[in-house]
Amino acid sequence: MKESRYFYVPDAAHQTELPMEEALHALRVLRLQSGDELFLMDGEGTFYRAEVTIAATKHCMYEIKETLPQEKSWRGRIHLAIAPTKMIDRIEWMAEKATEIGFDELSFLNCKFSERKAIRVVRLNKIIVAAVKQSRKPWKPRLTPMISFKEFIAQPRVGHKFIAHCYPELLRKDLFTELQELTDDAPVTILIGPEGDFSLEEVKMAEEKGYQSVTLGKSRLRTETAGLMAVSMAQLVLRK
Amino acid sequence: MKESRYFYVPDAAHQTELPMEEALHALRVLRLQSGDELFLMDGEGTFYRAEVTIAATKHCMYEIKETLPQEKSWRGRIHLAIAPTKMIDRIEWMAEKATEIGFDELSFLNCKFSERKAIRVVRLNKIIVAAVKQSRKPWKPRLTPMISFKEFIAQPRVGHKFIAHCYPELLRKDLFTELQELTDDAPVTILIGPEGDFSLEEVKMAEEKGYQSVTLGKSRLRTETAGLMAVSMAQLVLRK
Repeated sequence: MKESRYFYVPDAAHQTELPMEEALHALRVLRLQSGDELFLMDGEGTFYRAEVTIAATKHCMYEIKETLPQEKSWRGRIHLAIAPTKMIDRIEWMAEKATEIGFDELSFLNCKFSERKAIRVVRLNKIIVAAVKQSRKPWKPRLTPMISFKEFIAQPRVGHKFIAHCYPELLRKDLFTELQELTDDAPVTILIGPEGDFSLEEVKMAEEKGYQSVTLGKSRLRTETAGLMAVSMAQLVLRK
Repeated sequence: MKESRYFYVPDAAHQTELPMEEALHALRVLRLQSGDELFLMDGEGTFYRAEVTIAATKHCMYEIKETLPQEKSWRGRIHLAIAPTKMIDRIEWMAEKATEIGFDELSFLNCKFSERKAIRVVRLNKIIVAAVKQSRKPWKPRLTPMISFKEFIAQPRVGHKFIAHCYPELLRKDLFTELQELTDDAPVTILIGPEGDFSLEEVKMAEEKGYQSVTLGKSRLRTETAGLMAVSMAQLVLRK
Protein backbone atom coordinates (compact mmCIF):
# COMPACT_ATOMS: atom_id res chain seq x y z
CA MET A 1 0.00 0.00 0.00
CA LYS A 2 2.02 2.92 -1.29
CA GLU A 3 1.55 6.35 0.26
CA SER A 4 1.34 7.97 -3.15
CA ARG A 5 -1.71 5.90 -4.02
CA TYR A 6 -3.92 7.96 -1.71
CA PHE A 7 -6.12 10.43 -3.57
CA TYR A 8 -8.34 13.18 -2.27
CA VAL A 9 -11.76 12.88 -3.90
CA PRO A 10 -14.53 15.00 -2.34
CA ASP A 11 -17.79 13.05 -2.30
CA ALA A 12 -15.83 10.01 -3.56
CA ALA A 13 -18.74 7.60 -3.06
CA HIS A 14 -20.85 9.43 -5.62
CA GLN A 15 -18.10 10.07 -8.15
CA THR A 16 -16.58 7.67 -10.62
CA GLU A 17 -13.55 9.64 -11.74
CA LEU A 18 -10.54 11.25 -10.05
CA PRO A 19 -10.47 15.06 -10.12
CA MET A 20 -8.18 16.38 -12.92
CA GLU A 21 -5.11 17.07 -10.77
CA GLU A 22 -5.29 13.75 -8.97
CA ALA A 23 -5.86 11.97 -12.29
CA LEU A 24 -2.74 13.52 -13.83
CA HIS A 25 -0.71 12.42 -10.80
CA ALA A 26 -2.16 8.92 -10.95
CA LEU A 27 -1.58 8.55 -14.67
CA ARG A 28 1.60 10.48 -15.41
CA VAL A 29 3.59 10.07 -12.19
CA LEU A 30 2.39 6.77 -10.79
CA ARG A 31 1.43 5.37 -14.21
CA LEU A 32 -1.60 3.57 -12.81
CA GLN A 33 -3.38 1.27 -15.21
CA SER A 34 -6.71 -0.43 -15.42
CA GLY A 35 -7.02 -2.94 -12.58
CA ASP A 36 -4.56 -1.15 -10.23
CA GLU A 37 -5.59 -0.57 -6.64
CA LEU A 38 -5.88 2.94 -5.20
CA PHE A 39 -7.23 4.55 -2.05
CA LEU A 40 -9.61 7.48 -1.98
CA MET A 41 -10.09 9.94 0.89
CA ASP A 42 -13.30 11.98 0.84
CA GLY A 43 -12.20 14.39 3.59
CA GLU A 44 -15.46 13.64 5.39
CA GLY A 45 -14.36 10.68 7.48
CA THR A 46 -14.24 7.81 4.99
CA PHE A 47 -11.48 6.09 3.02
CA TYR A 48 -12.30 3.86 0.06
CA ARG A 49 -10.36 1.03 -1.50
CA ALA A 50 -10.94 1.29 -5.22
CA GLU A 51 -9.73 -0.07 -8.53
CA VAL A 52 -8.90 1.77 -11.71
CA THR A 53 -11.44 0.90 -14.40
CA ILE A 54 -10.36 3.20 -17.22
CA ALA A 55 -6.99 4.99 -17.46
CA ALA A 56 -7.17 7.41 -20.38
CA THR A 57 -4.88 10.37 -21.21
CA LYS A 58 -6.37 12.79 -18.70
CA HIS A 59 -9.09 10.72 -17.11
CA CYS A 60 -8.88 8.08 -14.43
CA MET A 61 -12.14 6.27 -13.70
CA TYR A 62 -12.52 4.09 -10.64
CA GLU A 63 -14.83 1.62 -9.00
CA ILE A 64 -15.12 1.43 -5.22
CA LYS A 65 -14.37 -2.03 -3.82
CA GLU A 66 -14.53 -1.33 -0.12
CA THR A 67 -15.83 1.46 2.14
CA LEU A 68 -13.57 2.11 5.14
CA PRO A 69 -15.20 4.50 7.65
CA GLN A 70 -12.59 6.03 9.98
CA GLU A 71 -12.83 6.94 13.63
CA LYS A 72 -12.01 10.46 14.68
CA SER A 73 -8.99 10.55 16.96
CA TRP A 74 -10.00 13.56 19.00
CA ARG A 75 -13.12 14.72 20.84
CA GLY A 76 -15.01 17.92 20.14
CA ARG A 77 -14.07 20.31 17.38
CA ILE A 78 -10.95 22.50 17.18
CA HIS A 79 -11.45 25.81 15.38
CA LEU A 80 -8.57 28.25 14.96
CA ALA A 81 -9.34 31.80 13.82
CA ILE A 82 -6.17 33.75 13.11
CA ALA A 83 -5.05 37.02 11.56
CA PRO A 84 -2.74 36.03 8.68
CA THR A 85 0.89 37.12 8.92
CA LYS A 86 2.43 39.70 6.62
CA MET A 87 4.66 36.97 5.17
CA ILE A 88 2.16 34.43 3.86
CA ASP A 89 4.62 31.49 3.92
CA ARG A 90 4.47 31.59 7.72
CA ILE A 91 0.72 31.02 7.72
CA GLU A 92 1.09 28.39 5.01
CA TRP A 93 3.43 26.24 7.09
CA MET A 94 1.19 26.71 10.09
CA ALA A 95 -1.78 25.44 8.06
CA GLU A 96 0.28 22.41 6.98
CA LYS A 97 1.48 21.62 10.50
CA ALA A 98 -1.90 22.19 12.17
CA THR A 99 -3.43 19.78 9.64
CA GLU A 100 -0.83 17.12 10.49
CA ILE A 101 -1.37 17.61 14.22
CA GLY A 102 -5.15 17.64 13.78
CA PHE A 103 -7.80 20.36 13.82
CA ASP A 104 -11.20 21.00 12.29
CA GLU A 105 -11.47 24.53 10.96
CA LEU A 106 -9.23 27.42 10.02
CA SER A 107 -10.67 30.92 9.71
CA PHE A 108 -8.91 34.15 8.84
CA LEU A 109 -9.55 37.41 10.62
CA ASN A 110 -9.12 40.92 9.30
CA CYS A 111 -8.17 42.88 12.40
CA LYS A 112 -7.45 46.51 13.13
CA PHE A 113 -3.67 45.93 13.21
CA SER A 114 -3.58 43.32 10.41
CA GLU A 115 -0.79 43.94 7.94
CA ARG A 116 -2.29 41.48 5.47
CA LYS A 117 -5.79 42.09 4.25
CA ALA A 118 -6.20 39.20 1.80
CA ILE A 119 -5.34 35.51 1.51
CA ARG A 120 -5.34 33.10 -1.41
CA VAL A 121 -7.84 30.50 -0.28
CA VAL A 122 -7.23 28.20 -3.26
CA ARG A 123 -3.49 27.99 -2.58
CA LEU A 124 -4.01 27.44 1.13
CA ASN A 125 -6.58 24.78 0.43
CA LYS A 126 -4.07 22.92 -1.76
CA ILE A 127 -1.54 22.99 1.08
CA ILE A 128 -4.14 21.62 3.48
CA VAL A 129 -5.19 18.88 1.04
CA ALA A 130 -1.53 17.85 0.57
CA ALA A 131 -1.11 17.64 4.36
CA VAL A 132 -4.37 15.70 4.71
CA LYS A 133 -3.09 13.15 2.20
CA GLN A 134 0.43 13.02 3.63
CA SER A 135 -0.79 12.54 7.19
CA ARG A 136 -3.80 10.41 6.16
CA LYS A 137 -6.34 12.49 7.98
CA PRO A 138 -9.87 11.16 7.42
CA TRP A 139 -11.31 14.66 7.84
CA LYS A 140 -10.11 17.66 5.85
CA PRO A 141 -10.06 20.83 7.97
CA ARG A 142 -12.58 23.36 6.76
CA LEU A 143 -11.09 26.56 5.44
CA THR A 144 -13.17 29.72 5.65
CA PRO A 145 -12.26 32.91 3.76
CA MET A 146 -11.11 36.04 5.55
CA ILE A 147 -13.78 38.12 7.25
CA SER A 148 -13.60 41.12 9.53
CA PHE A 149 -12.95 40.49 13.20
CA LYS A 150 -16.24 42.17 14.12
CA GLU A 151 -18.19 39.98 11.73
CA PHE A 152 -16.50 36.82 13.06
CA ILE A 153 -17.24 37.43 16.72
CA ALA A 154 -20.81 38.46 15.87
CA GLN A 155 -21.48 35.04 14.32
CA PRO A 156 -23.42 32.71 16.61
CA ARG A 157 -20.99 30.07 17.85
CA VAL A 158 -21.56 27.36 20.42
CA GLY A 159 -18.95 25.89 22.76
CA HIS A 160 -15.83 27.25 24.44
CA LYS A 161 -14.47 30.48 23.02
CA PHE A 162 -11.06 31.97 23.77
CA ILE A 163 -9.13 35.02 22.64
CA ALA A 164 -5.33 34.99 23.16
CA HIS A 165 -3.71 38.40 23.52
CA CYS A 166 -0.87 40.25 25.22
CA TYR A 167 -2.66 42.90 27.31
CA PRO A 168 -1.48 42.30 30.89
CA GLU A 169 -3.98 44.88 32.16
CA LEU A 170 -6.82 42.47 31.33
CA LEU A 171 -7.29 39.30 33.38
CA ARG A 172 -6.03 36.41 31.26
CA LYS A 173 -6.33 32.77 32.22
CA ASP A 174 -3.89 30.12 31.02
CA LEU A 175 -5.30 28.50 27.85
CA PHE A 176 -3.79 25.04 28.44
CA THR A 177 -5.11 24.93 32.02
CA GLU A 178 -8.56 26.05 30.87
CA LEU A 179 -8.63 23.42 28.12
CA GLN A 180 -7.60 20.70 30.57
CA GLU A 181 -10.57 21.56 32.74
CA LEU A 182 -13.13 21.09 29.95
CA THR A 183 -15.31 18.10 30.62
CA ASP A 184 -17.65 18.15 27.64
CA ASP A 185 -17.15 17.64 23.91
CA ALA A 186 -18.38 21.08 22.87
CA PRO A 187 -16.44 22.85 20.08
CA VAL A 188 -13.40 24.93 21.02
CA THR A 189 -12.71 28.19 19.17
CA ILE A 190 -9.44 30.07 19.70
CA LEU A 191 -8.68 33.53 18.28
CA ILE A 192 -5.06 34.56 17.56
CA GLY A 193 -4.24 38.15 16.58
CA PRO A 194 -1.88 39.71 14.04
CA GLU A 195 1.80 40.65 14.62
CA GLY A 196 0.63 43.86 16.31
CA ASP A 197 -1.91 41.97 18.47
CA PHE A 198 -5.65 42.62 18.63
CA SER A 199 -6.63 46.14 19.58
CA LEU A 200 -7.79 46.58 23.14
CA GLU A 201 -11.20 47.47 21.72
CA GLU A 202 -11.34 44.21 19.74
CA VAL A 203 -10.49 42.20 22.86
CA LYS A 204 -13.23 43.94 24.82
CA MET A 205 -15.76 43.35 22.04
CA ALA A 206 -14.83 39.65 22.00
CA GLU A 207 -15.20 39.40 25.77
CA GLU A 208 -18.68 40.88 25.45
CA LYS A 209 -19.48 38.12 22.96
CA GLY A 210 -18.42 35.42 25.42
CA TYR A 211 -14.78 34.95 24.45
CA GLN A 212 -12.50 34.37 27.43
CA SER A 213 -9.16 36.20 27.54
CA VAL A 214 -6.23 33.78 27.67
CA THR A 215 -2.45 33.62 27.45
CA LEU A 216 -0.51 30.79 25.83
CA GLY A 217 2.18 30.89 28.54
CA LYS A 218 5.30 32.87 29.28
CA SER A 219 6.88 32.51 25.85
CA ARG A 220 6.76 35.36 23.41
CA LEU A 221 5.46 33.65 20.28
CA ARG A 222 5.09 34.84 16.71
CA THR A 223 1.54 34.82 15.34
CA GLU A 224 1.96 31.57 13.41
CA THR A 225 3.70 29.84 16.33
CA ALA A 226 0.90 30.96 18.65
CA GLY A 227 -1.66 29.51 16.22
CA LEU A 228 0.15 26.18 16.08
CA MET A 229 0.65 26.09 19.85
CA ALA A 230 -3.08 26.74 20.41
CA VAL A 231 -3.96 23.85 18.08
CA SER A 232 -1.36 21.60 19.77
CA MET A 233 -2.73 22.38 23.23
CA ALA A 234 -6.31 21.63 22.15
CA GLN A 235 -5.20 18.45 20.39
CA LEU A 236 -3.25 17.18 23.44
CA VAL A 237 -6.24 17.77 25.68
CA LEU A 238 -8.94 16.46 23.33
CA ARG A 239 -7.20 13.49 21.73
CA LYS A 240 -8.76 10.11 22.46
CA MET B 1 12.07 49.92 24.76
CA LYS B 2 12.19 48.91 21.11
CA GLU B 3 12.40 45.24 20.18
CA SER B 4 15.15 45.91 17.68
CA ARG B 5 17.40 47.28 20.41
CA TYR B 6 18.06 43.78 21.77
CA PHE B 7 21.47 42.43 20.81
CA TYR B 8 22.94 39.00 21.27
CA VAL B 9 26.39 39.34 22.84
CA PRO B 10 27.93 36.11 24.16
CA ASP B 11 29.80 36.79 27.41
CA ALA B 12 28.41 40.34 27.30
CA ALA B 13 29.59 41.18 30.82
CA HIS B 14 33.23 40.76 29.82
CA GLN B 15 33.00 42.44 26.44
CA THR B 16 32.86 46.13 25.62
CA GLU B 17 31.87 46.00 21.97
CA LEU B 18 29.01 44.52 19.94
CA PRO B 19 29.96 41.64 17.63
CA MET B 20 30.43 42.84 14.01
CA GLU B 21 27.01 41.79 12.69
CA GLU B 22 25.16 43.25 15.65
CA ALA B 23 27.23 46.44 15.40
CA LEU B 24 26.33 46.89 11.74
CA HIS B 25 22.65 46.47 12.58
CA ALA B 26 22.94 48.91 15.49
CA LEU B 27 24.78 51.53 13.46
CA ARG B 28 23.41 51.24 9.93
CA VAL B 29 19.82 50.18 10.51
CA LEU B 30 18.95 51.60 13.92
CA ARG B 31 21.49 54.47 13.64
CA LEU B 32 22.33 54.28 17.34
CA GLN B 33 24.56 57.02 18.62
CA SER B 34 26.71 57.64 21.63
CA GLY B 35 24.48 57.83 24.72
CA ASP B 36 21.65 55.68 23.27
CA GLU B 37 20.25 52.86 25.39
CA LEU B 38 20.45 49.23 24.24
CA PHE B 39 19.80 45.80 25.73
CA LEU B 40 22.24 42.91 25.57
CA MET B 41 21.38 39.20 25.88
CA ASP B 42 24.24 36.86 26.70
CA GLY B 43 22.32 33.66 25.94
CA GLU B 44 23.32 32.37 29.38
CA GLY B 45 20.45 33.72 31.45
CA THR B 46 21.25 37.41 31.81
CA PHE B 47 20.06 40.57 30.08
CA TYR B 48 21.98 43.84 30.43
CA ARG B 49 20.85 47.42 30.06
CA ALA B 50 23.73 49.25 28.44
CA GLU B 51 24.59 52.55 26.81
CA VAL B 52 26.49 53.22 23.59
CA THR B 53 29.84 54.84 24.41
CA ILE B 54 31.43 54.99 20.95
CA ALA B 55 29.59 54.60 17.63
CA ALA B 56 32.18 54.37 14.87
CA THR B 57 31.80 53.16 11.27
CA LYS B 58 31.90 49.46 12.07
CA HIS B 59 32.34 49.44 15.80
CA CYS B 60 29.81 49.95 18.56
CA MET B 61 31.28 50.12 22.06
CA TYR B 62 29.01 49.89 25.10
CA GLU B 63 29.02 50.28 28.84
CA ILE B 64 26.78 48.12 31.02
CA LYS B 65 24.46 50.14 33.26
CA GLU B 66 22.40 47.39 34.81
CA THR B 67 22.61 43.59 35.11
CA LEU B 68 19.21 41.89 34.80
CA PRO B 69 19.40 38.18 35.67
CA GLN B 70 16.39 36.27 34.27
CA GLU B 71 14.45 33.36 35.69
CA LYS B 72 14.08 30.22 33.63
CA SER B 73 10.45 29.60 32.76
CA TRP B 74 10.63 25.81 32.67
CA ARG B 75 12.01 23.07 34.90
CA GLY B 76 14.65 20.55 33.90
CA ARG B 77 16.31 20.54 30.53
CA ILE B 78 14.74 19.77 27.14
CA HIS B 79 17.08 18.15 24.63
CA LEU B 80 15.87 17.23 21.14
CA ALA B 81 18.06 14.97 18.99
CA ILE B 82 16.71 14.66 15.46
CA ALA B 83 17.72 13.34 12.07
CA PRO B 84 17.64 16.35 9.74
CA THR B 85 15.12 16.27 6.89
CA LYS B 86 16.13 16.03 3.24
CA MET B 87 14.75 19.55 2.69
CA ILE B 88 16.76 21.63 5.14
CA ASP B 89 14.21 24.47 5.32
CA ARG B 90 11.90 22.13 7.24
CA ILE B 91 14.48 21.64 9.98
CA GLU B 92 15.29 25.35 9.94
CA TRP B 93 11.74 26.36 10.73
CA MET B 94 11.54 23.69 13.38
CA ALA B 95 14.68 25.12 15.01
CA GLU B 96 13.10 28.60 14.93
CA LYS B 97 9.78 27.44 16.36
CA ALA B 98 11.31 25.19 19.03
CA THR B 99 13.43 28.15 20.17
CA GLU B 100 10.33 30.35 20.47
CA ILE B 101 8.46 27.66 22.39
CA GLY B 102 11.48 26.94 24.57
CA PHE B 103 14.06 24.16 24.71
CA ASP B 104 17.69 23.72 25.74
CA GLU B 105 19.61 21.71 23.19
CA LEU B 106 19.32 20.59 19.59
CA SER B 107 21.45 17.71 18.32
CA PHE B 108 21.53 16.18 14.86
CA LEU B 109 21.68 12.46 14.25
CA ASN B 110 23.10 10.64 11.28
CA CYS B 111 20.93 7.54 11.05
CA LYS B 112 20.83 4.50 8.82
CA PHE B 113 17.90 5.82 6.79
CA SER B 114 18.96 9.51 6.87
CA GLU B 115 18.70 11.18 3.49
CA ARG B 116 20.73 14.15 4.68
CA LYS B 117 24.23 13.51 5.97
CA ALA B 118 25.37 17.07 6.71
CA ILE B 119 23.99 20.31 8.15
CA ARG B 120 25.26 23.87 8.12
CA VAL B 121 25.68 24.60 11.81
CA VAL B 122 26.57 28.28 11.29
CA ARG B 123 23.39 28.97 9.34
CA LEU B 124 21.22 27.09 11.84
CA ASN B 125 22.88 28.91 14.70
CA LYS B 126 22.00 32.24 13.08
CA ILE B 127 18.36 31.16 12.82
CA ILE B 128 18.35 30.16 16.48
CA VAL B 129 19.99 33.44 17.55
CA ALA B 130 17.39 35.42 15.58
CA ALA B 131 14.60 33.47 17.30
CA VAL B 132 16.25 33.95 20.72
CA LYS B 133 16.28 37.70 20.13
CA GLN B 134 12.80 37.85 18.66
CA SER B 135 11.27 35.83 21.49
CA ARG B 136 13.59 37.33 24.14
CA LYS B 137 14.78 34.01 25.47
CA PRO B 138 17.35 34.49 28.25
CA TRP B 139 19.02 31.17 27.33
CA LYS B 140 20.18 30.34 23.81
CA PRO B 141 19.57 26.67 22.98
CA ARG B 142 22.82 24.80 22.51
CA LEU B 143 23.39 23.46 19.01
CA THR B 144 25.56 20.38 18.63
CA PRO B 145 26.91 19.27 15.25
CA MET B 146 25.73 16.10 13.57
CA ILE B 147 27.09 12.83 14.90
CA SER B 148 26.25 9.22 14.16
CA PHE B 149 23.26 7.71 15.91
CA LYS B 150 25.49 5.06 17.51
CA GLU B 151 27.87 7.66 18.86
CA PHE B 152 25.00 9.74 20.28
CA ILE B 153 23.34 6.94 22.21
CA ALA B 154 26.73 5.74 23.49
CA GLN B 155 27.34 9.13 25.14
CA PRO B 156 26.69 9.11 28.88
CA ARG B 157 23.46 11.02 29.47
CA VAL B 158 21.55 11.45 32.72
CA GLY B 159 17.80 11.88 33.05
CA HIS B 160 14.81 10.63 31.08
CA LYS B 161 15.54 9.30 27.61
CA PHE B 162 12.97 8.58 24.93
CA ILE B 163 13.07 7.36 21.34
CA ALA B 164 9.97 8.02 19.19
CA HIS B 165 9.41 5.59 16.33
CA CYS B 166 6.73 3.90 14.25
CA TYR B 167 7.34 0.17 14.88
CA PRO B 168 4.04 -1.18 16.25
CA GLU B 169 5.71 -4.54 16.99
CA LEU B 170 7.68 -2.88 19.82
CA LEU B 171 5.91 -1.76 22.98
CA ARG B 172 5.64 2.03 22.82
CA LYS B 173 4.32 4.20 25.62
CA ASP B 174 2.66 7.54 25.00
CA LEU B 175 5.30 10.30 25.28
CA PHE B 176 2.96 12.98 26.63
CA THR B 177 1.58 10.65 29.31
CA GLU B 178 5.11 9.59 30.31
CA LEU B 179 6.25 13.22 30.53
CA GLN B 180 3.25 14.14 32.67
CA GLU B 181 4.24 11.45 35.16
CA LEU B 182 7.75 12.82 35.70
CA THR B 183 8.16 14.18 39.19
CA ASP B 184 11.78 15.30 39.19
CA ASP B 185 13.68 17.99 37.32
CA ALA B 186 16.11 15.65 35.56
CA PRO B 187 16.93 16.41 31.90
CA VAL B 188 14.65 15.02 29.18
CA THR B 189 16.17 13.77 25.92
CA ILE B 190 13.93 12.83 22.98
CA LEU B 191 15.15 11.19 19.77
CA ILE B 192 13.26 11.71 16.48
CA GLY B 193 14.20 9.73 13.37
CA PRO B 194 14.50 10.59 9.68
CA GLU B 195 11.72 10.44 7.06
CA GLY B 196 12.29 6.68 6.74
CA ASP B 197 12.26 6.25 10.57
CA PHE B 198 15.02 4.74 12.67
CA SER B 199 16.02 1.21 11.70
CA LEU B 200 14.67 -1.52 13.98
CA GLU B 201 18.28 -2.22 14.94
CA GLU B 202 18.83 1.41 15.94
CA VAL B 203 15.70 1.35 18.13
CA LYS B 204 16.88 -1.82 19.84
CA MET B 205 20.35 -0.37 20.45
CA ALA B 206 18.77 2.74 21.98
CA GLU B 207 16.55 0.63 24.23
CA GLU B 208 19.65 -1.18 25.46
CA LYS B 209 21.14 2.20 26.34
CA GLY B 210 18.13 3.10 28.46
CA TYR B 211 15.97 4.95 25.91
CA GLN B 212 12.28 4.22 26.26
CA SER B 213 10.25 3.59 23.10
CA VAL B 214 7.42 6.10 22.70
CA THR B 215 4.78 7.29 20.26
CA LEU B 216 3.70 10.91 19.88
CA GLY B 217 0.05 9.92 19.44
CA LYS B 218 -2.18 8.74 16.63
CA SER B 219 -1.24 11.44 14.14
CA ARG B 220 1.14 10.63 11.32
CA LEU B 221 3.65 13.46 11.61
CA ARG B 222 6.50 14.53 9.38
CA THR B 223 9.95 14.45 10.99
CA GLU B 224 10.08 18.20 11.68
CA THR B 225 6.50 18.25 13.01
CA ALA B 226 7.33 15.34 15.30
CA GLY B 227 10.37 17.24 16.60
CA LEU B 228 8.31 20.33 17.31
CA MET B 229 5.51 18.32 18.90
CA ALA B 230 8.01 16.57 21.19
CA VAL B 231 9.42 19.94 22.31
CA SER B 232 5.89 21.33 22.78
CA MET B 233 4.86 18.36 24.92
CA ALA B 234 7.95 18.68 27.13
CA GLN B 235 7.47 22.43 27.42
CA LEU B 236 3.78 22.11 28.39
CA VAL B 237 4.67 19.61 31.09
CA LEU B 238 7.81 21.31 32.44
CA ARG B 239 6.83 24.99 32.26
CA LYS B 240 6.66 26.77 35.59
